[in-house]
Amino acid sequence: MKRPLFTLAVLTLAAPLAAQEAEPPTPASTVAAAPASDWRAIDPADLMVMTLAPDRDGNPREVVIQLMPPPFSQGWVENIRTLARAHWWDGTTVYRVVDNWVAQWGDGEDDEAKAKPLPAGLRVVPESEYEIRTTAAEEGSMVLQHPRAYLEDSYGDWAWFESGWPVGYAIADDTRSLRSWPVHCYASVGVARDLSPDTGTGAELYAVIGHAPRQLDRNIAVVGRVIEGIEHLATLPRGKGEAGVYDDPALRVPIVSVRLGNELPAGERPRFEYLGSDTASFAEYVRVRANRNDAFYKVPAGGIDVCNVQVPIRRVGTP
Amino acid sequence: MKRPLFTLAVLTLAAPLAAQEAEPPTPASTVAAAPASDWRAIDPADLMVMTLAPDRDGNPREVVIQLMPPPFSQGWVENIRTLARAHWWDGTTVYRVVDNWVAQWGDGEDDEAKAKPLPAGLRVVPESEYEIRTTAAEEGSMVLQHPRAYLEDSYGDWAWFESGWPVGYAIADDTRSLRSWPVHCYASVGVARDLSPDTGTGAELYAVIGHAPRQLDRNIAVVGRVIEGIEHLATLPRGKGEAGVYDDPALRVPIVSVRLGNELPAGERPRFEYLGSDTASFAEYVRVRANRNDAFYKVPAGGIDVCNVQVPIRRVGTP
Repeated sequence: MKRPLFTLAVLTLAAPLAAQEAEPPTPASTVAAAPASDWRAIDPADLMVMTLAPDRDGNPREVVIQLMPPPFSQGWVENIRTLARAHWWDGTTVYRVVDNWVAQWGDGEDDEAKAKPLPAGLRVVPESEYEIRTTAAEEGSMVLQHPRAYLEDSYGDWAWFESGWPVGYAIADDTRSLRSWPVHCYASVGVARDLSPDTGTGAELYAVIGHAPRQLDRNIAVVGRVIEGIEHLATLPRGKGEAGVYDDPALRVPIVSVRLGNELPAGERPRFEYLGSDTASFAEYVRVRANRNDAFYKVPAGGIDVCNVQVPIRRVGTP
Repeated sequence: MKRPLFTLAVLTLAAPLAAQEAEPPTPASTVAAAPASDWRAIDPADLMVMTLAPDRDGNPREVVIQLMPPPFSQGWVENIRTLARAHWWDGTTVYRVVDNWVAQWGDGEDDEAKAKPLPAGLRVVPESEYEIRTTAAEEGSMVLQHPRAYLEDSYGDWAWFESGWPVGYAIADDTRSLRSWPVHCYASVGVARDLSPDTGTGAELYAVIGHAPRQLDRNIAVVGRVIEGIEHLATLPRGKGEAGVYDDPALRVPIVSVRLGNELPAGERPRFEYLGSDTASFAEYVRVRANRNDAFYKVPAGGIDVCNVQVPIRRVGTP
């Protein structure tokens, strides 16, 4: 990989805040020590609640998805809001599950004549929206605003977080432009598509249920992440049909409903917060995760990959 | 992270073998093109077949584990062979499952008075065996023998493969010694332990069922990997007790038996092969995986992390 060129702007990880403590900090203790002001509310309008049919023992299965905030993937995110408001996913299924890869849901019908009609108003989103490009003229301000720290990354020049989301960065040698894109980690939600990169509407979605498939970055749109209930997708039986599709339709898991958080009655709206990635608490959390030396750990790694830094997210109040 | 110091010895990835092809190679086409001589048989004596009780629909559940070859983790691997030959795991359970983390099995009894007695002959393995150290005197020959290529790694100086297993490398600045260790990837099998690093006997084992928990490298012994049937562990319900232990004992999944491959009757021995990681086919496979530009992919990543390179392993003949 190329090394970051803007070395003056890209600082190493912050010095420990807790260096004076008797016990070495843990990721959990670092998060617990974060002041309330470092936590940011997630707007219920940016959440989708996907209710699957209960499992065979009658246990409810609810999956909460946070949609990607600007500036990334907004064409697809708007389509997804349109689909959700139309209640389009109600009655569709989870129809494909591949071990160490994805669980996928939607209509899942290859035959166009039989496919469930899509709501009006969906955009065809071009592949140029897989990344954000900042041209050389804006270079200095862009880079100086963003990285307060960075992580080395095998898939680009470096990685860090924006608004609580993992982001990859690369500098294009030809144009001297900075490119940034949302990355695929465990529980990331993306837009399934056909071979042409503009064919994903947002109707067919997947969640990652294995090791981060980073080769998909900039090749498929990451549009969100599962912030609660990923186990309801990760524990589904793996499909034995072509590409992991359930060949027996009876195995498909019915989706009862998908609702935007702000569609729900006021008392039922999901309320979550994330630890702001522009805070000193978050930088310290990353540093501690990359240098574990609490009771169990004897050899601090001295580094970490961006997908092994789970951004702290917590439910507020009772569901 | 530190960069490799032995830059003359650590070569970049091999040039494409298939540059003349009309269609860009895929990982699958690269593996398919590997000559038979690049495949290496896995000795059945290095495999363990773990048979879980059938699932609630009566489907069989068999998990095949390959044990780590020398030079890594051999103290624990020998303990595991002793435990397997004693049929010690028969009648134990999978008792802990944590989403995006591990499924763990063995006796799972914290109360020593109630714990299942261990067979004679188990060694206490010191934490020094978490890594291999090569001193400065041997430096040149060691490094020149091993890396024909390398991958950047967030957790050490670089990573590559030995005998078909992912390995991390670091050069200790103080002693100028080379350290190498087996890394935790999806489906890796490791030795659970208490706080003291020499407390893991090998009786309590776990398999990784999520994103590679690389912070465990050099802190817990990696002793093998699941090469078939990981879905039987990854789809288990997540535990709701402390640390993901099944608080309801009825949820524990019975282990019917664990057998070394060479304990089985000749006709039932598991036969597998892996693609030798010292072959040109393997180097090309890594290059192609790191630079996908076949039909679906528009932006080759230009890099890959070591745990996203699944070493090709195939069953030979019928099970």
